[in-house]
Amino acid sequence: MFLEKIPSEGLAHLSYVFGDGKQAGVVDPRRDCETYLDIAHQNGAEITHVFETHRNEDYVIGSQELARRTGAAVYHGHAMDFAYGNPVSDGDRFELDGLFLTILETPGHTYESISIAIHDPAFGQEPVGVFTGDALFVGDVGRTDFFPDAKEEVAGLLYDSIFEKLLPLGDHVILYPAHGAGSVCGSGMASREFSTLGYERLNNPVLQRTDRADFVQFKIQEKHYQPPYFRKMEEYNLKGNAQEMPRLPRPRPMPAAEFAKAMDNSMVAVDVRSPEAIAGASIPGSLAIPLDMIPAYAGWFLEYGRPIGIVPEDGAHEQIETAVRYLIRLGYDHVPGFLEGGLHEWETSARHYQRIPALHIAELRERMENNEEFTLLDVRKHDEFDAGHLANAQHMFLGDIPARLDEISRDRPVVTFCGSGRRAIIAASILKQHGFSDVSDCLGSMSACADTACPVETSD
Amino acid sequence: MFLEKIPSEGLAHLSYVFGDGKQAGVVDPRRDCETYLDIAHQNGAEITHVFETHRNEDYVIGSQELARRTGAAVYHGHAMDFAYGNPVSDGDRFELDGLFLTILETPGHTYESISIAIHDPAFGQEPVGVFTGDALFVGDVGRTDFFPDAKEEVAGLLYDSIFEKLLPLGDHVILYPAHGAGSVCGSGMASREFSTLGYERLNNPVLQRTDRADFVQFKIQEKHYQPPYFRKMEEYNLKGNAQEMPRLPRPRPMPAAEFAKAMDNSMVAVDVRSPEAIAGASIPGSLAIPLDMIPAYAGWFLEYGRPIGIVPEDGAHEQIETAVRYLIRLGYDHVPGFLEGGLHEWETSARHYQRIPALHIAELRERMENNEEFTLLDVRKHDEFDAGHLANAQHMFLGDIPARLDEISRDRPVVTFCGSGRRAIIAASILKQHGFSDVSDCLGSMSACADTACPVETSD
Amino acid sequence: MFLEKIPSEGLAHLSYVFGDGKQAGVVDPRRDCETYLDIAHQNGAEITHVFETHRNEDYVIGSQELARRTGAAVYHGHAMDFAYGNPVSDGDRFELDGLFLTILETPGHTYESISIAIHDPAFGQEPVGVFTGDALFVGDVGRTDFFPDAKEEVAGLLYDSIFEKLLPLGDHVILYPAHGAGSVCGSGMASREFSTLGYERLNNPVLQRTDRADFVQFKIQEKHYQPPYFRKMEEYNLKGNAQEMPRLPRPRPMPAAEFAKAMDNSMVAVDVRSPEAIAGASIPGSLAIPLDMIPAYAGWFLEYGRPIGIVPEDGAHEQIETAVRYLIRLGYDHVPGFLEGGLHEWETSARHYQRIPALHIAELRERMENNEEFTLLDVRKHDEFDAGHLANAQHMFLGDIPARLDEISRDRPVVTFCGSGRRAIIAASILKQHGFSDVSDCLGSMSACADTACPVETSD
Amino acid sequence: MFLEKIPSEGLAHLSYVFGDGKQAGVVDPRRDCETYLDIAHQNGAEITHVFETHRNEDYVIGSQELARRTGAAVYHGHAMDFAYGNPVSDGDRFELDGLFLTILETPGHTYESISIAIHDPAFGQEPVGVFTGDALFVGDVGRTDFFPDAKEEVAGLLYDSIFEKLLPLGDHVILYPAHGAGSVCGSGMASREFSTLGYERLNNPVLQRTDRADFVQFKIQEKHYQPPYFRKMEEYNLKGNAQEMPRLPRPRPMPAAEFAKAMDNSMVAVDVRSPEAIAGASIPGSLAIPLDMIPAYAGWFLEYGRPIGIVPEDGAHEQIETAVRYLIRLGYDHVPGFLEGGLHEWETSARHYQRIPALHIAELRERMENNEEFTLLDVRKHDEFDAGHLANAQHMFLGDIPARLDEISRDRPVVTFCGSGRRAIIAASILKQHGFSDVSDCLGSMSACADTACPVETSD
Repeated sequence: MFLEKIPSEGLAHLSYVFGDGKQAGVVDPRRDCETYLDIAHQNGAEITHVFETHRNEDYVIGSQELARRTGAAVYHGHAMDFAYGNPVSDGDRFELDGLFLTILETPGHTYESISIAIHDPAFGQEPVGVFTGDALFVGDVGRTDFFPDAKEEVAGLLYDSIFEKLLPLGDHVILYPAHGAGSVCGSGMASREFSTLGYERLNNPVLQRTDRADFVQFKIQEKHYQPPYFRKMEEYNLKGNAQEMPRLPRPRPMPAAEFAKAMDNSMVAVDVRSPEAIAGASIPGSLAIPLDMIPAYAGWFLEYGRPIGIVPEDGAHEQIETAVRYLIRLGYDHVPGFLEGGLHEWETSARHYQRIPALHIAELRERMENNEEFTLLDVRKHDEFDAGHLANAQHMFLGDIPARLDEISRDRPVVTFCGSGRRAIIAASILKQHGFSDVSDCLGSMSACADTACPVETSD
Repeated sequence: MFLEKIPSEGLAHLSYVFGDGKQAGVVDPRRDCETYLDIAHQNGAEITHVFETHRNEDYVIGSQELARRTGAAVYHGHAMDFAYGNPVSDGDRFELDGLFLTILETPGHTYESISIAIHDPAFGQEPVGVFTGDALFVGDVGRTDFFPDAKEEVAGLLYDSIFEKLLPLGDHVILYPAHGAGSVCGSGMASREFSTLGYERLNNPVLQRTDRADFVQFKIQEKHYQPPYFRKMEEYNLKGNAQEMPRLPRPRPMPAAEFAKAMDNSMVAVDVRSPEAIAGASIPGSLAIPLDMIPAYAGWFLEYGRPIGIVPEDGAHEQIETAVRYLIRLGYDHVPGFLEGGLHEWETSARHYQRIPALHIAELRERMENNEEFTLLDVRKHDEFDAGHLANAQHMFLGDIPARLDEISRDRPVVTFCGSGRRAIIAASILKQHGFSDVSDCLGSMSACADTACPVETSD
Repeated sequence: MFLEKIPSEGLAHLSYVFGDGKQAGVVDPRRDCETYLDIAHQNGAEITHVFETHRNEDYVIGSQELARRTGAAVYHGHAMDFAYGNPVSDGDRFELDGLFLTILETPGHTYESISIAIHDPAFGQEPVGVFTGDALFVGDVGRTDFFPDAKEEVAGLLYDSIFEKLLPLGDHVILYPAHGAGSVCGSGMASREFSTLGYERLNNPVLQRTDRADFVQFKIQEKHYQPPYFRKMEEYNLKGNAQEMPRLPRPRPMPAAEFAKAMDNSMVAVDVRSPEAIAGASIPGSLAIPLDMIPAYAGWFLEYGRPIGIVPEDGAHEQIETAVRYLIRLGYDHVPGFLEGGLHEWETSARHYQRIPALHIAELRERMENNEEFTLLDVRKHDEFDAGHLANAQHMFLGDIPARLDEISRDRPVVTFCGSGRRAIIAASILKQHGFSDVSDCLGSMSACADTACPVETSD
Repeated sequence: MFLEKIPSEGLAHLSYVFGDGKQAGVVDPRRDCETYLDIAHQNGAEITHVFETHRNEDYVIGSQELARRTGAAVYHGHAMDFAYGNPVSDGDRFELDGLFLTILETPGHTYESISIAIHDPAFGQEPVGVFTGDALFVGDVGRTDFFPDAKEEVAGLLYDSIFEKLLPLGDHVILYPAHGAGSVCGSGMASREFSTLGYERLNNPVLQRTDRADFVQFKIQEKHYQPPYFRKMEEYNLKGNAQEMPRLPRPRPMPAAEFAKAMDNSMVAVDVRSPEAIAGASIPGSLAIPLDMIPAYAGWFLEYGRPIGIVPEDGAHEQIETAVRYLIRLGYDHVPGFLEGGLHEWETSARHYQRIPALHIAELRERMENNEEFTLLDVRKHDEFDAGHLANAQHMFLGDIPARLDEISRDRPVVTFCGSGRRAIIAASILKQHGFSDVSDCLGSMSACADTACPVETSD
């Protein structure tokens, strides 16, 4: 019996391929699904079953793509009316060569959420592991904010799913959740990606709230952000209408002149380089999203329908492929080109470029001490801001900036600020796009404050 | 926190590299240790701690090699007088960046055996997993036959280690053993390589013997084989005197004439092709060990000190590298060359080759029914033979053949036989080496009997 | 300026990708065309031009596939009425960023054959190299047997193309032909794949025939074979109607039972293992074609339309991918599965297997000396046979066997024979398919005779 | 017969591995020599001969390393007293399996320089190609400035070598030089890496100087730079005393605190990121050398003996390996670590960082038009500067800066300037190291002037 976890970086999405003998199953496949085929192939097995733990909202699920390539059947919870696949119910059982699976309905995160227990009949009838989707994570539980009109109900459902369905499977059961640390689907996850139901029962902070009302109360007061692209994912994953993707799109090299012209014609330039490189020189009008932040932030700022042009480091072809991979997982399929030669070619052809000067924390403090006039724009999440921020900082969550630009003064310099300076560079690029002229980024940001004598306040 | 399992195929040896932040540890490294360095590197960590769960007897441990490359400290149980490294004792605690480890003395398999529990202090003080070495496996426990004069004592020690040290850690603890299915260090292991202490407590057949005396009785009646190479491994792993191996040896291509000449000068030819290819044509005097059987069987037949020449499939350079990798793990470091062009070159240069005709199970049965004169040599292990064999089969365990050749009649044909025909091809090549002229191999062997009406007997 | 040669093994087909700045061109692409895209990409260029030197007859050309993926324009000689692409004529000139190309019509091999000279205008107007298609090779010239009714004409055209078009370009011009050693498109090619027009002028044996009549006479007496699959290639490459192939087909693992059943339902089993392995044990009814012989021989024996099942070495997944790659280059697109577990699984499930005993040259000679009754079937080409064969050998070219089976006696044993025993194993498997029971293969064959005192005769 | 060119990027060094049958030879191997072994291995050959065309001065030759691994013999010209290897003379002949080589003494670049012609005896006695070392390149000839006291003599020797030894081999001979475009060993090389003696005779600009005196005159007025590291290379390559390097050094991850401390203890930080990233934020005191510029510029600025710490982009482990590879080729073997987490970690730990603002060409022109006080430091080579530079620019070749710092005014801002801004970032980092506070880099530099109305002057 084999079982492999496939992480999708950035999304912190975890999918699984497992099997025995000639048959294999996949749980929550991503859209670029070659890797499942490869692993099954190496194990001499064929993918026959694909399970979706729920209608995922944070990425385009690859069930249909995988089914097209293998003929596998797709299964998901009956409580939602999917346009494809087969409904399953509590207690349903699936046999693959040397193993069997049982379905548990575990609503809460969504109504149709299921978990799938995996059993090794050569040893016993108890499950050896369980795929919990977005119900239970290592160190956290799933978010329950998708149904604002029923928030108490769904939080209660999640309590029941965890305490009455999952934990009773036994302390010995290995946990296989759908997300790891860094996912937008939960905020308290451990960086460790291995655990058991028993270890979670003992140590997961949320599971210490064994009183149902207390648990529900805790969940309904949680604050989560919902990126606008979630709507598109929900549509794709309900209707199964994302376009077929037999291979990864391959953007073509665009010389600076062509790239500039395409930008004039509605192409949005996404600069995937490091914050320092973007700070040094970048294309006016481009949107900065350092490569590994695409999964988490592209969905806040990119419109569906507009073509995307990548600005990579010169020669870093692997950045282009990674960017495309990240983008198509979010349903951004139209990436016609990349800036050939990187910024270097842009510079040598004398095209204008912008600078976003880095501002050291010591310089920032000095400005504050001198009572200089400037806006310190803190773009972190509410809970981060509340837990500690610099005095006089203006708070505006990164994702909200496009809609709240008029709340930012144009009469004085802006210093963007976040946990480390990385989200701040995205913010800075957005301000630049909208005509703010004096924008700098505090590289280091809050993390750097820890090591200096900065005046930190908390909200209450 | 990361933790990765590194399997060494064939040996079914499992080693682990784990870490957090800037520090990483390795448990039971193999000698070709690049992979640990790569994984630590990818995680931004440096290997600082190497643990040996015990003085391994089935492979050359890579602790020294890894320490040479990283400066890491090596640790092992205090109950043996190692010529290198540092002794540890029950309760010792090691801190790496974001995790800590605790040592448990778990003797039984050997006296100095230790287990190492891994803790995530961000969540709790209980261990989340435990490296159990050869004390506890998935579906089995370690063998206790290495101290024939103290077999009751060590079996009892193992019982105590498991029931009083390991299982009390809690059902929720993930099991990280030193071997998986197919190892010579235990026979009942599951093909599944993931489990927990709780799942084993419930389902491991040996752990159902909760009565100490019953457990001890069961263990002392077990039969295990000890390949002769174990002595060499024990010496290497006690003294730490295996030679430095900064990179994998690279055998050079030998044309047929050179290969033949080297064979005349003491080089042993090891034919790593498939049983069918060996059956079709092979070099007289060569030892057949299909590639993936090297880890389990080379140590029975190859003398230390003699140079080894590989006979691969023509053009299959990856077979050569794999063979070398397998051989150096067993301390066979001197592999000067391989037959360039494979058998094809041997054939086209008109050198003599031998055939080992395959014998189908139906033909075998026919011979039996016709009472033809021949020896059916069953080379499986005692317990396999006892569980079911063909009538009139002569039993001789594969590893014993070189020492017991005079028990095999030279006056009549020999048909070698095993579970599937693969071990039988090794046996056949050994008989050929020693002048048996009419040797065939029942490809299919016992497995094929399952589907036919063969007269199977059991021993009692 | 970059220029890379892409060899397609087995076919000994050479294609080229070259370019400068942002533009790249490809000459005679194969159907699995990812590699051209990769190389262009690495060089920061986009493929804009695809040239076909002629309507190839020995493989499916990838022009259309490549055009679909890049939008490149396809060009070929105007003297044939292709269903796609654009016609070019002598003297046409194409500019890519830092280079230019000129077209030479070089008929002879076919009427529409063109050569393409490549120029580096930064240095001079003379060409630096020339893509000669099947007009001129390293050590040989193209075959001229495709127009039996006009053989003198086309041989003369070839003479003119070489002596009046190509050689006048200058001794200094680098030669980039469409085939290397081992191709069915010429028999005298050098193993060396680099040469110049000048080196060929001096050393190419055929170019020493500077007298036109002598050249023509030499060419028309040449004997070439035309595998039946050429007809299909010509159709595909004229009409451009090979099916789209966005990615390589991926056969699925078939357990022995399923594989056997599929064979009953018209699937042809192609055994791609080594001759020795096939000799040892193979599936009754299968067609033996050792992996690297697929490009040269599959087209003689496989019908279009029948599904193909691969018999690889157990675990050798790379053999499966290579086999598929070779097959689709010949237009065999339907490869639904492979025997999972290789022959081993077939054997252990007690299915019948056949043996094709290897016969050593010394044993063969002994049989001859003893005047034993048997057929020695020599399956080499005419010219090889004529140059030297064993006394009493019956000659039948490998490709002709299916049509001439009734010329082979079924009343006595057959020993198949070729240059080394590799083609002989194909022949042996075909005889086995048709009920010949006593078939053996002389592994070593003619090559082994060189080193022994075999009675060799020549034809006159 | 196989022949492969192995380029070493940055050095634009070309080495070759070739062979036939079981034997292979290598010309001018680099120190990280695995690639030659791999290629020989794939071709079923063993490296038996290593040739050095001359005592190379721009990299550590890998002859000894390769000889240690293979037992191959090393050969070089007799006119220098090497501490290892074997001397060869004009006309010496070497036979490898299916080919032979002849030695031509071709002094000029150095006295002991040789060329090696390669012959295919299956076709003719004329050479098919020639390895010309630093005598003749594609589009240029070797530099002759290493013997200032004998410059007319060596230029004349080179003329004789080319016109009386090489060109007479014939127009048809393929050229295999030791360098391609971008090498410091010649400035006029073509970007194209394939040519013939004939094509060079016709088109190489220097070879148009067929009059010996004219040729000599042309050569002795050439200006070349000699980086200080050449002396170390010459010592290594004469004495063969570079240290053994069985595998690439693997720097370990250093957290910011450790990295900073090591810098205090003499470690030099080499920042290999892009100019834009360095401009955005970099470590005070570090030396900026963008990754692909290490081969050409590290030897100007790095002292032997000091440990080197790499500053890569965060997570770009391949940058570290590449940097190490480049450095060891220049004999910089001591690279103990790299900044773990890149600049990001430096920033978040609140360590000080510097900025080197990019200055757009339009801003530069504006400053010039406004007659602002600043130094425009043009760091290109003499001939580049002479061919065109901005008015009032101060010229100082990049490599000369450390020795001429006091010629640069500290009283006013400095703008570094080169061909594109890349060398300028190195210059800027050196100024920063030496306390210049207001330094900016004109990203785009001279290339950007081409597209704008900049006031360009030429020198006479």
